[in-house]
This record gives sequence, C-alpha cells and structure tokens, in this order.
Amino acid sequence: MNPYVIEMSGRGTHPSVLDVHVNIGEKSSMQGKMKGRKARWCVKPSDMANNTFNPIRAIVDSMKVKPNPNKATIALSIGDPTVFGNLPTDPEVTQAMKNALDSGKYNGYAPSIGYLSSREEIASYYHCPEAPLEAKDVILTSGCSQAIELCLAVLANPGQNILVPRPGFSLYKTLAEAMGIEVKLYNLLPEKSWEIDLKQLESLIDEKTACLIVNNPSNPCGSVFSKKHLQKILAVAARQCVPILADEIYGDMVFADCKYEPLATLSTNVPILSCGGLAKRWLVPGWRLGWILIHDRRDIFGNEIRDGLVKLSQRILGPCTIVQGALKSILRRTPQEFYDNTLSFLQSNADLCYGALAAIPGLRPVRPSGAMYLMVGIEMEHFPEFENDVEFTERLVAEQSVHCLPATCFEYPNFFRVVITVPEVMMLEACSRIQEFCEQHYSAEGSQEECDK
Amino acid sequence: MNPYVIEMSGRGTHPSVLDVHVNIGEKSSMQGKMKGRKARWCVKPSDMANNTFNPIRAIVDSMKVKPNPNKATIALSIGDPTVFGNLPTDPEVTQAMKNALDSGKYNGYAPSIGYLSSREEIASYYHCPEAPLEAKDVILTSGCSQAIELCLAVLANPGQNILVPRPGFSLYKTLAEAMGIEVKLYNLLPEKSWEIDLKQLESLIDEKTACLIVNNPSNPCGSVFSKKHLQKILAVAARQCVPILADEIYGDMVFADCKYEPLATLSTNVPILSCGGLAKRWLVPGWRLGWILIHDRRDIFGNEIRDGLVKLSQRILGPCTIVQGALKSILRRTPQEFYDNTLSFLQSNADLCYGALAAIPGLRPVRPSGAMYLMVGIEMEHFPEFENDVEFTERLVAEQSVHCLPATCFEYPNFFRVVITVPEVMMLEACSRIQEFCEQHYSAEGSQEECDK
Ligand SMILES: Cc1ncc(COP(=O)(O)O)c(C=O)c1O
Ligand SMILES: Cc1ncc(COP(=O)(O)O)c(C=O)c1O
Repeated sequence: MNPYVIEMSGRGTHPSVLDVHVNIGEKSSMQGKMKGRKARWCVKPSDMANNTFNPIRAIVDSMKVKPNPNKATIALSIGDPTVFGNLPTDPEVTQAMKNALDSGKYNGYAPSIGYLSSREEIASYYHCPEAPLEAKDVILTSGCSQAIELCLAVLANPGQNILVPRPGFSLYKTLAEAMGIEVKLYNLLPEKSWEIDLKQLESLIDEKTACLIVNNPSNPCGSVFSKKHLQKILAVAARQCVPILADEIYGDMVFADCKYEPLATLSTNVPILSCGGLAKRWLVPGWRLGWILIHDRRDIFGNEIRDGLVKLSQRILGPCTIVQGALKSILRRTPQEFYDNTLSFLQSNADLCYGALAAIPGLRPVRPSGAMYLMVGIEMEHFPEFENDVEFTERLVAEQSVHCLPATCFEYPNFFRVVITVPEVMMLEACSRIQEFCEQHYSAEGSQEECDK
Repeated sequence: MNPYVIEMSGRGTHPSVLDVHVNIGEKSSMQGKMKGRKARWCVKPSDMANNTFNPIRAIVDSMKVKPNPNKATIALSIGDPTVFGNLPTDPEVTQAMKNALDSGKYNGYAPSIGYLSSREEIASYYHCPEAPLEAKDVILTSGCSQAIELCLAVLANPGQNILVPRPGFSLYKTLAEAMGIEVKLYNLLPEKSWEIDLKQLESLIDEKTACLIVNNPSNPCGSVFSKKHLQKILAVAARQCVPILADEIYGDMVFADCKYEPLATLSTNVPILSCGGLAKRWLVPGWRLGWILIHDRRDIFGNEIRDGLVKLSQRILGPCTIVQGALKSILRRTPQEFYDNTLSFLQSNADLCYGALAAIPGLRPVRPSGAMYLMVGIEMEHFPEFENDVEFTERLVAEQSVHCLPATCFEYPNFFRVVITVPEVMMLEACSRIQEFCEQHYSAEGSQEECDK
C-alpha cells in the first residue's frame, strides 16, 4: 500500500464537511489575499518578547570585568543553594522520586492543575484552623515562578497595576511588564528591618490596582515580617479592597529567634493567593514544583478566579508528574532534622557574614532573620572612586574575584546582596576579601562631609 | 534579640537611599490616592483568563451523559498512551532518571533554556546534514505545549494571525486566542489522506500572518505527509515569506510502510521552529520535557528571535532538571526495539480498528499512517436521530460506555476521533460495541436521499 494514496472505506462520496470549510476567523481573506503581503522576509520578535526584561541578566551581562586571575572565584551572587554541594536535599526526598518512578504510576498526563492526591497532600500539609485548605484550593505549577505568573495573569489586565516591593525579587516586574501590567514600587525600610512603608504603599493604590505582592520572608532582604506588621499590611489591603499575592517561597525558612506567619492565617477577609514550592525549603530548585494556595474565606475570588487559574494552567499542563507523585513522601517523610540543619547552617552563616561585614568601615549590612540572603548598604560617600553599587561590585570581582549582586538588580541602588548558602570557609574568605577591598578604597573624607551636614 | 527590632551596624545614619524612594512607575499617585478607588471588593478574572478556552474541556464537560451501568467504560478519548499500562516506557528511560537523581548533580537551577549538555544531546540526536543543529539551536521547555506557547509568543503580536490546520490540535487556538492572536483555519482534505488544501491555505495569508503551523504526523488525523507534499507546503511558505512552526511531537512515529520527513530537512530557506518532546515517542507525557529546534539557515530569525525565545523562557525557567539530566541516557540507551515495538503495536491496532469500522455502514474511517489516532467520518444522513457528532458520541457513551472525542473539538464536525493506544482486546470490544450502536441507529433512508441528489 502506498500510504500517501487516498484510502477511505466505502464507495460513496465522503461525508459532507463542506459546511465547515468556511473560515470562521477569516473576515476578508479573499480581499487580503496577495494584496498587501510583501514577498520578503521580515520576522521580528513580538512586543511581549521585547518587553520581557530580566534586570539581573541585563546588569550582570553588561558587567564586563574579569575576576582576578590570582584569586579563586567566590560566587555570592547565585540564589541557588545547591551549587556548592554543601546543602544536599534529604535522602528521603530522592528516595521518594525513585519510588514514584518505580511505581510506573506517574508517567501519564496529570490534570493540568496537578493530581488530586498531590493537591490533597499540599492542602493537608499547609492546612490550619485559621486558614483551612482543601485540594480544591491548591494548584500545582511549574515552579513558584509559574505560580506567580498564573496569579498575575488571572488578576490583572494590561493597563492595570500591581504593587511590588523595593527592594524586591525581579521576576515580578519581568512578568508584569511582559503582560503590559504597570509596576508600582512600594518601599521597604532598611532602618526598620525592611518593614513596608505602609503610608507610601497605601498612597500608590488607585482604582487600577489589581493586587499587592507581599514577599515574606524576603529575597533579597532576608527579612521576616512580624505578626503585627503583617496585620497592618492586611488592614491596608482590606481597607482598599486589594487582593494579595503572597510570595511565600521562603515560608518556614526563618531563624531560631523568629516566627514565620503565613499571611493567610492572619486574615479573615482579604483574599490571598499564596505562592510556594519545593525549591528552597527542600533544596531542589531545578525540579520546578510550585503551587498556588487559594485563600478566599469571604468568597471574593469566587469560582471565577479559580476557574481562571484552572484555564490558564491548561496552557502548559502543570509540573513534572514524577515530582508530583513523590510529593506525599517528600512532605511526610522528610525528617524535621533536615529542616533544622538547613536553618541552623543558614543562621550561623548569616551571623558570621553579618558580624564580619558590620566591622568593615563603609559597609552597613542589615541582619537577616530568614531566607538565604543578606543586604549590605554601601556608604558611597566613603568610596568616591565608585559611581554606584554596580561599579562597586564590578571592581570587587576584578580585584577580589568575589561576585555579589548589585542591588540595582532589585531596584535598590547603593546596596549589594550576599547569598549565605555557601560553605562556611568560603563565606569567611569572601568576607575577608571584601574587607581588604573596602580598606583599599575607603576614604574618610565622606564621613566628615556627612557630619557637617 | 528581638528579630523585629532594628539592628543595623554602625552608629551613623543609614546610607542614603532616599533618591530611590521615588516611584518611577508612578506618575500621579498622590492625585490617584483615595480618589476613584472604590472601597468594595471586586476581583474579576483578566481578559486573558476569560479568553483561555479549551474546546475539548468545554465540549466534554458539557456532555452530561452517564455511561451505561451494565457495560464497563472504554475510553478511546484520551490522548495519553500510558493510561492502560500496556505501553510502559522503556526500563532504560526510568533507569536514566534514577541515575540522574543519584548523581545529585541535577537538583539546582539549570539555565532557563536548559543545561548546555542536555541541549547538545538533543542537537546531536536530531542533527543531520540537510538540517544541522547545535546546542545553541535548542531550547528545552516544559512539554511541547510550552514549546508551542513560546514560539507563538515570540512570533506574533496581538492582532496578527496564524494559520492552523482544521482538523487540528486544539491547543494552538487556545494559546493564540489567550494572546489576542487571530486564528485562521486551513483545511485538511480527508479524501486526500488529510493533505493540506494548499490553495485555500495560501488564500488565507495576508500581511498580518505571523506563522504557519504544520502538524506532522497529525493529531487528530494520524496522517503523515509525503515528502512531495511537504515540499509544496514549504514552497507556499517561501513564496509568501511566512515562517513555520512545525509541531513534530509525533516525529518518527510512523508505520512501517511510510517515512517521516522532518520539515526542516526539506527546506533551504524557510525559517522553521520545530517543536517536539519526550511525551509521545518515549511514552512519558507527564514528565513535561519538550523542546524547540531552531532551523534558520538563511538567518531570517537572526539573533532577535533567538534572544526573544531565551527571554521568554526566563519567565518560568525550563523543565525539570532531573529529566534534563536523564536526557543523554534516554536518547542514547533506549533500544531500537522499544520504538519498533511501540509502532508495530500502534500499527496493528490501527489496522484492526480501521478494518472493523470500515465494515460498519454509516461510518467512514480514514486509515492512519502514524501517531496514535484515527478519524472516523459519520454519514450523518444515515443517523437521523442525532443532530451532530457531539450527540452521536454522547449517545455512544450512554448506550455502549465507549468514549470517543467528537471532532467538533478539532473544529471538524461530523467526525469522531479514536485513540488507538488501548490494549487490543479493548480495541476489539470497543469496535464491536460501536458496530452494535451503529446498527441500532442506522437508517438506510439517508442513502436514498443522497443518491437522489
Ligand atoms: C522571592 C522568590 N519568589 C519566587 C522564586 C521562584 O521560585 P521557583 O524557582 O520555584 O520558580 C524565587 C527564586 O529565587 C524567589 O526568590
Ligand atoms: C499535536 C500535539 N502537539 C503538542 C502536544 C503537547 O505535547 P506535550 O504533552 O509535550 O505538551 C500534543 C499532545 O497531545 C499534541 O497532540
């Protein structure tokens, strides 16, 4: 048989489908035909592609300096806890994946929002009386990044605006601007342990405000909001009727002396989409399993927003099913010790780094309470050689081979961010190189000026 | 220490960041403040969410019928080869995943377009002299679905149009309409083994046409285009200067008597984005590993489209790293036998199903040459009880507990689609129930009418 030759059963004519051979979407194809079509190639990226802008890439890629060839490079710039091998995930987590593979049950398509059983596990893990959750309140996503993308996509139309922290994780702006959503930046106050300037926040809200993003614990600040501060944030949202996107990817990752409060547990009436994932707490960011928890006790989102999220999830059909299949064991079997060890390591590194940098004239680190980061203010007036934080960190690479992200990446000039997941010896070595660098470039001059003011 | 109390190093004032405390995005926040903001809740899904429409869900969910309680359900409706357990993936594929897990090397973030080493593997697997590929031509995605999404997102602006096959996979329309891209349907001709009506295709092209989607082998048709036909398609694209999105997720899945030609191997000048993935050929659709192969020998896409794809990939950061880490072994170690066995099973089921349905008065199956599907025309005039394919398939469920998708889901009324991945006994049983159903509802009347015309 020649497979290209028509073979149809029956002798008669084919069932009539001529009725559908009329293009619904096409209003003027005949007129449009040939006319106007220029027969030359011109393929340009869409506006959306052009507007998808990652400030970290833009700033880091434009830093042309080479590290000092005489010093081994130390990267305090990458928010990936796995790169140095000192923070492996728990063996139970890996075993859960192997069991999921061996079962053979998780190779097919899951529902686009995730297996019911996996969503049940997440719901019961994060359920609490003040913020109850069922499977129907959970949507699994391809990383917390996609969780944030779906939330913004369902809540905001082009032309609306969202409220985003400054300093803050750059993805919010990247996603929003690609979708034509305006970003309004509200301030975090370093002198108040990075609490929100609530008055300024509230002043930004207008009738086009589609949602407020609250990131707690924070990247890049490592800050953790108190219950009282969270209640005040909720009060603003309630008063202004603005729903909240709570980016809680660092949820539960707080140091010993401090408590993490999921935002939804403190609210009775503000509708909240809480985004999270396995990336940080379970130390497997590459696995791309995230989630949205829908908290809507007053039925303000209603079915419409839920349906919208479900529909949007059908575009790419959710996260890898093996990770979904492993979720139950990951949540139930990871020993408490694993979480505790990660946190005590982070806290000890944070203390170490904070202590070392606080002793360096010209630097002003802000002590973190959670997550994996620490922000350091640069008293630029004492470093007259450098224009700004980008130049400061650039020269730090060139002279000391230490990479830090200039906080301009987070819309916050004159600071830089340090990642505290690196091995302790590296942390120490990095701090002593930063000290050497600062000593070599510090000028007391600026200090005088400041006192004179 | 109270973690919420300010703790900053140094005695002086904080480094000045007041300069950044001015909101760039905010033009009139002070005027906007309070004014206009209505203090009542009104949270509605975005237009994009409302416009994200999955016809399969809409049609299937609205089919309210219950299967016949006296007959076990047979689902010929789900395009998931794994559901019945008769088509497991190869043990080498599972082993590759376990090795990737054990290595501990694939838990961190990969570049958003995928590990270089994984992209190299894909490039060398699909490389051939007529269509050379390097790692830089490969972008890994979260399933073929995201590959298609990124391609449409980079090529088309809202208001432009794309050319989509009818009948065709519904995701194209779902994605395009969510992005405000118009869909123009070109016709596949069942009497020509589903070849494209090239004249009608060309008539649809206008100056706003951003790309032509060619799906070969086809879902839902199971058709495979000949080299000659593909060359004619390329000639249209070349003449009209329209780039091609080749959905080749069923690439290499063709029956013994027929050859699969990757579109790019036949083109010298048309820029082609070929989308594929592990889902179908390796029988692991849940793992969500897809790819885009960029073929652009005349440098028409240039760096701009490549950069656009990279930037868009940064929104959700690529597929699961464990699957990426396993790619090398999956591609190199899966035995030829595995692919052969899958195909001979599919071919035998296709023959069986085609043979059985072709013998049923009132049905007109079209013999497939590849993929996992078979389309069946319904001579509606012989089934006067039923309004259309939706009602036909609905009643088939109610009476015989056999689920097929009405081809209205693929914009092609009066057909239904059969999935041929089910175990042979099920295939046989389903066909005999379809026969019983048709015999019970067939009316010779229509035939007369037709002859009279
Ligand atoms: C605050 C914040 N939100 C979201 C994400 C994205 O998480 P994922 O890797 O799960 O997409 C990150 C990653 O660094 C983050 O820092
Ligand atoms: C023609 C076609 N393209 C793309 C896809 C999506 O593939 P994936 O599951 O890898 O996203 C499918 C899935 O059924 C398909 O049939």
